[in-house]
Amino acid sequence: MTEYQAFQVELTGKVAHVAINRPEKANAMNAAFWSEIIDIFRWVDETDEVRVVVLSGNGKHFSSGIDLQLLAQAASQLGNDIGRNAERLRHKILSLQASLNAVDHCRKPVIAAIQGCCVGGAVDLISACDMRYSTADAQFSIKEIDMGMAADVGTLQRLPRIIGDGMMRELAYTGRNVSGEEAQAIGLVNRTYVDHSALMDGVFALAAEIAAKSPLAIRGTKEMIRYMRDHRVDDGLEYMATWNAAMLQSADLKVAMAAHMTKQKPDFAD
Amino acid sequence: MTEYQAFQVELTGKVAHVAINRPEKANAMNAAFWSEIIDIFRWVDETDEVRVVVLSGNGKHFSSGIDLQLLAQAASQLGNDIGRNAERLRHKILSLQASLNAVDHCRKPVIAAIQGCCVGGAVDLISACDMRYSTADAQFSIKEIDMGMAADVGTLQRLPRIIGDGMMRELAYTGRNVSGEEAQAIGLVNRTYVDHSALMDGVFALAAEIAAKSPLAIRGTKEMIRYMRDHRVDDGLEYMATWNAAMLQSADLKVAMAAHMTKQKPDFAD
Amino acid sequence: MTEYQAFQVELTGKVAHVAINRPEKANAMNAAFWSEIIDIFRWVDETDEVRVVVLSGNGKHFSSGIDLQLLAQAASQLGNDIGRNAERLRHKILSLQASLNAVDHCRKPVIAAIQGCCVGGAVDLISACDMRYSTADAQFSIKEIDMGMAADVGTLQRLPRIIGDGMMRELAYTGRNVSGEEAQAIGLVNRTYVDHSALMDGVFALAAEIAAKSPLAIRGTKEMIRYMRDHRVDDGLEYMATWNAAMLQSADLKVAMAAHMTKQKPDFAD
Amino acid sequence: MTEYQAFQVELTGKVAHVAINRPEKANAMNAAFWSEIIDIFRWVDETDEVRVVVLSGNGKHFSSGIDLQLLAQAASQLGNDIGRNAERLRHKILSLQASLNAVDHCRKPVIAAIQGCCVGGAVDLISACDMRYSTADAQFSIKEIDMGMAADVGTLQRLPRIIGDGMMRELAYTGRNVSGEEAQAIGLVNRTYVDHSALMDGVFALAAEIAAKSPLAIRGTKEMIRYMRDHRVDDGLEYMATWNAAMLQSADLKVAMAAHMTKQKPDFAD
Amino acid sequence: MTEYQAFQVELTGKVAHVAINRPEKANAMNAAFWSEIIDIFRWVDETDEVRVVVLSGNGKHFSSGIDLQLLAQAASQLGNDIGRNAERLRHKILSLQASLNAVDHCRKPVIAAIQGCCVGGAVDLISACDMRYSTADAQFSIKEIDMGMAADVGTLQRLPRIIGDGMMRELAYTGRNVSGEEAQAIGLVNRTYVDHSALMDGVFALAAEIAAKSPLAIRGTKEMIRYMRDHRVDDGLEYMATWNAAMLQSADLKVAMAAHMTKQKPDFAD
Amino acid sequence: MTEYQAFQVELTGKVAHVAINRPEKANAMNAAFWSEIIDIFRWVDETDEVRVVVLSGNGKHFSSGIDLQLLAQAASQLGNDIGRNAERLRHKILSLQASLNAVDHCRKPVIAAIQGCCVGGAVDLISACDMRYSTADAQFSIKEIDMGMAADVGTLQRLPRIIGDGMMRELAYTGRNVSGEEAQAIGLVNRTYVDHSALMDGVFALAAEIAAKSPLAIRGTKEMIRYMRDHRVDDGLEYMATWNAAMLQSADLKVAMAAHMTKQKPDFAD
Repeated sequence: MTEYQAFQVELTGKVAHVAINRPEKANAMNAAFWSEIIDIFRWVDETDEVRVVVLSGNGKHFSSGIDLQLLAQAASQLGNDIGRNAERLRHKILSLQASLNAVDHCRKPVIAAIQGCCVGGAVDLISACDMRYSTADAQFSIKEIDMGMAADVGTLQRLPRIIGDGMMRELAYTGRNVSGEEAQAIGLVNRTYVDHSALMDGVFALAAEIAAKSPLAIRGTKEMIRYMRDHRVDDGLEYMATWNAAMLQSADLKVAMAAHMTKQKPDFAD
Repeated sequence: MTEYQAFQVELTGKVAHVAINRPEKANAMNAAFWSEIIDIFRWVDETDEVRVVVLSGNGKHFSSGIDLQLLAQAASQLGNDIGRNAERLRHKILSLQASLNAVDHCRKPVIAAIQGCCVGGAVDLISACDMRYSTADAQFSIKEIDMGMAADVGTLQRLPRIIGDGMMRELAYTGRNVSGEEAQAIGLVNRTYVDHSALMDGVFALAAEIAAKSPLAIRGTKEMIRYMRDHRVDDGLEYMATWNAAMLQSADLKVAMAAHMTKQKPDFAD
Repeated sequence: MTEYQAFQVELTGKVAHVAINRPEKANAMNAAFWSEIIDIFRWVDETDEVRVVVLSGNGKHFSSGIDLQLLAQAASQLGNDIGRNAERLRHKILSLQASLNAVDHCRKPVIAAIQGCCVGGAVDLISACDMRYSTADAQFSIKEIDMGMAADVGTLQRLPRIIGDGMMRELAYTGRNVSGEEAQAIGLVNRTYVDHSALMDGVFALAAEIAAKSPLAIRGTKEMIRYMRDHRVDDGLEYMATWNAAMLQSADLKVAMAAHMTKQKPDFAD
Repeated sequence: MTEYQAFQVELTGKVAHVAINRPEKANAMNAAFWSEIIDIFRWVDETDEVRVVVLSGNGKHFSSGIDLQLLAQAASQLGNDIGRNAERLRHKILSLQASLNAVDHCRKPVIAAIQGCCVGGAVDLISACDMRYSTADAQFSIKEIDMGMAADVGTLQRLPRIIGDGMMRELAYTGRNVSGEEAQAIGLVNRTYVDHSALMDGVFALAAEIAAKSPLAIRGTKEMIRYMRDHRVDDGLEYMATWNAAMLQSADLKVAMAAHMTKQKPDFAD
Repeated sequence: MTEYQAFQVELTGKVAHVAINRPEKANAMNAAFWSEIIDIFRWVDETDEVRVVVLSGNGKHFSSGIDLQLLAQAASQLGNDIGRNAERLRHKILSLQASLNAVDHCRKPVIAAIQGCCVGGAVDLISACDMRYSTADAQFSIKEIDMGMAADVGTLQRLPRIIGDGMMRELAYTGRNVSGEEAQAIGLVNRTYVDHSALMDGVFALAAEIAAKSPLAIRGTKEMIRYMRDHRVDDGLEYMATWNAAMLQSADLKVAMAAHMTKQKPDFAD
Repeated sequence: MTEYQAFQVELTGKVAHVAINRPEKANAMNAAFWSEIIDIFRWVDETDEVRVVVLSGNGKHFSSGIDLQLLAQAASQLGNDIGRNAERLRHKILSLQASLNAVDHCRKPVIAAIQGCCVGGAVDLISACDMRYSTADAQFSIKEIDMGMAADVGTLQRLPRIIGDGMMRELAYTGRNVSGEEAQAIGLVNRTYVDHSALMDGVFALAAEIAAKSPLAIRGTKEMIRYMRDHRVDDGLEYMATWNAAMLQSADLKVAMAAHMTKQKPDFAD
């Protein structure tokens, strides 16, 4: 397994565990974070044994968001011409967005497990995951507003589809703390757990459950739900039919059917 | 009233009751189901007396989903060329989707009443209805994942708009059971009832209430909400204005206004 | 401050209070309402000191909806040719919609505070606001269905994004009353308060909190969330990057950063 | 081969010849036309031997457009309520559109061969075909404007993609005659021929050429071009990749490759 | 008729002649131009007698584009904060765009008649018209590139739909002169005339021809073509059916039909 | 300058010349082609001195399209499961598309210069360029149809916007040869030249002309035209205003203005 500066990555069974690993910095998202996450999720995407990803943060907090040094550095690279600075900043933001797109576009489901603080850029990150689970006392905050800026790496784009338009605006305008419990009530997390240990147990059990399904079917399902975030129902139906035109010829259906008949657990190829 | 193999259809007052009627097979959706549903909803659409539809399942369960014989039969019709098989499968899936589109596109509101199991293709079916009500102990499951395939007749396309993106993925990846109560909490059903009998009473009372409204206004309202699932707010406003440009010249407004003044119940033409 | 016939408008600190002011008519939305609201929100948009708007209704009720005299008057202006009437009605509806678009498109956040009845056109109005808060005993109703018509000034277009597709249809088809508490459960309001006085205190405290943030950042955030209601995630990310390419060169980031370092409250220019 | 009232249909080799066959009425599109065209193109779609369609008009003219009796009849079915009439007319228009959609959605290429007059509804018809060829002295006219109405069965929707926005408006506003030669200059037809006989020879030669290609590849190509009329480049690329994921596993590629190597004509299965 | 500083406006028969009237300044688009054009086209839209508009430029040239003083003035209003300047510039550009949107959104057809130079902002202007006609020796140029900026009031948005993607880029990157004859070859103008006088005769004859058609049908036709510039074919068909549901109940069809039968010219109400 | 296997790359002045350099293989697009083109266009994008790209083919032909060995190799990597093969093929196609997307998404204009044959994949390639110029005797052919497949790396997606829907279908269904002259008539190339030498002179003169413009303005112009290929006019206007909000604060406008006043050539920073 490759060594990373900002992450700890493990593969157990079919489940990859990707943990942000800068606990002494509250897992602030530094330069290494933004580049390594692309490599990690390319590996996830290309490695057949990996069927599901659990994304977590080592230590007390999930993550305190983007490392402020990174912003300072970006600011220091600006020159005299406002237009050329704008082009450079635009390029920089697109590049940070691309790091989180790697999570969103990953063909395998990504489950976020959140304890402690999940702030600013970390909310952008979990918005790009498939599903979110947290401890009851976790704290979420769209903190960018208090940095004098609009959140620009994905929160404002992806979160409205998850928590609805009304509460979205309150959280984005105020940057206030949302507890795990409130997060569940508004749909930001699917479920809360009493503590960090229960959370990790719950999330890995869920990951194992998904990893035992047909990987082709899981990937098709993810692609279709991702597609529906941005497309019309009729386009989605047509895309689905085109996709399954090939996939229904796979052996996985027969494996599933045989297991169903014999009441045994199916065993799907990677 | 026409006789059907897979359905029992009745018209009482202005409310059509469409019941899947294969209780001995847990209302599995067989070949007759998929073709008759098109005829039934064409009749609903074209029959002026029908103003609202209640869709239910006779017996202990709403429906156990697609009849596995149907899948086996589709598989048996495949030939040697993978490309031509793909074309045939794509056509088959589009054709099954069209059966449920008949429910979605029906101009009159369709209310689903669900007890017992509602599994696989049955979830695709209720996702195409306007509203869903169930007993508290009903069981919902996106079972396709356990058949080794992505759900391809509408669940993945329509359900995200109803229950949101986060929980959608959990249910689609795991295929786990969701009780009526959880279904209400996540917005999958609007309300639950203590038992089957209370459910049917509640749903028919609701249907009667809607049937007493101006049928033109109800159909315009349905068209607009359906349209907004896939269109922009500005397009929706323009479409609405164009629609009502004709409809506000109808007598129904005067009927409604007169009833409002005299505190009597309005009586709208079909 | 300009005097209005249908509104009372005040500016305190950075918060504009826009109150519908026809309490003796239950704040019915008359001709003055529909034209003055455009002027008021143009003033809000162009006045740098205004950072947030609270929209409320004076008296016992938020608003009973469109003034029926207005509908009667529109009807009286119709001529003999159905086609030309249709063109006139279409124009009239587009013009009423434009009045509420002024609220939706306003660059500053608009917070609705609702007590008593909020009926018909008033639901269209609050659907165009950023966020909604109410007393626990407030009553909401999509009353247009009982006038024999589909709601045509925004409810059917904007509300589905806020409360989801399933409950949307029930409320639009039945026009039934929804209490403040149910409104919170389905996401129509973000929070309820025990009485009118607590509601206004809560809403003004929220407004003050938002008014203390960087106004550039708040406006960028609103623009992005509004944009996402109708656009794809990838388009939203690109638009966001283009927007912040200029905005990240503003002084507000430095002000925010300095305040963050010194643990003082930042003071942003209008 | 089924007998039709408004059409003459023949299958020669792999090419279906569908000729409007009411020469004594200048091939006016009567009730039989609108219903039979659906049946004919369903047959085209489902019949594997048919690979290409030539659509023409028997006699002196391609077609004089919709039969005025049909319009008179539709008018006679209207009742007293303007709203219900609007619903009925909307339904009628959608139904006429569906007849021409059958041409547009047909999986096999449809080539229109036009001589003499091609007027009103006939322009709607040829706009739904894949390609258009005519005699040099053919006459095209968007005649609906002179009936006091906007063309509503497809001309205004499909023709702008074919001839561009600027000339489109001139032709639609004036209804003026366009000769075959001008039609070629503006892209309305791909090529003109000196007379009817040369036209039919040219079009059948083209049809035969297309019929000799891999039918799977032709159908995929048509689907993709049709899709691009309404979708984004990135969506088109993704759809294309999903489509070919199955189709590239077909034997047709090997057949084509072998023919290429041996310099022989490939022989593709239907 | 109102007096304007930048325009001369006349109404003859049903045709409004809107002429840019600063010949001594080569009809440069000054502050008066940008505000008066909104008023003029509001008047066009609301005045029933006006059925068609001819837009031309008095003197030797159609227009030399935006008045450079206007740009200088906008620059002089900028302050110290780059972010706030960006907001102000964005607002200014949107406001200039709105002036040309008034032409694009006008319900009546707008015909541009172009002689001499048509440069920079003047190309944005004619791109917002329905159709363009010019003298053979007219000169077109997307001059913004030589001002160091991307054309931002409509050329880049509307012209690709008119002249296609390939030539569009050459003209926008180089700003080179295009003669009337080349303009016709690439579809930028529909036709050229030998001199200014022939141009005006030709354009007014065309305007008179359109003015004699059913105004309802013309407006419906324009709305549909405008709609198709940005929408899908299926959406366009549905919108068309909804529109004509009311319009086919107008008297204009009977007037047209009666005229058709009696071979007389129809006389439509405004 | 980096050395490439499939390309020869030179930078002269501000113009990069990217030549496919396998003349002995008729510039067939082999594995090196598909990977190196990504690196080259990343370099183009990131290198400030490069302002324009000329893309050509060394030797007698522009390019004979995809190397058949590459297809054979892809075929050889397929396994037993049809579903997994489909996933692999889909991935492969997306990856080939990404190579040409690098051309399309490049911020600097890319001019294609075509002599001899331009076949199959080479048409996909030039469809992703900004503009195309050729010798009069060049030969274009959408050859994929004769390989038994639909063109899947961009021709079907991008070419309809360039040459229109009608001729597009003829060329894609038949794969017939189109000469340079016909290519100009249908808009596939902007201009033809008598021979290869005149072509290269003409194209480099054009490139030099564009390279002398403000690079910020050129990049903004390209981004806007690219955006309009897939977006609505109103979205394009809003995006444009947001873009120029920053760019109009650049020094390039002042440089351009000063040059305009002094009648000198402007000198823009990279």
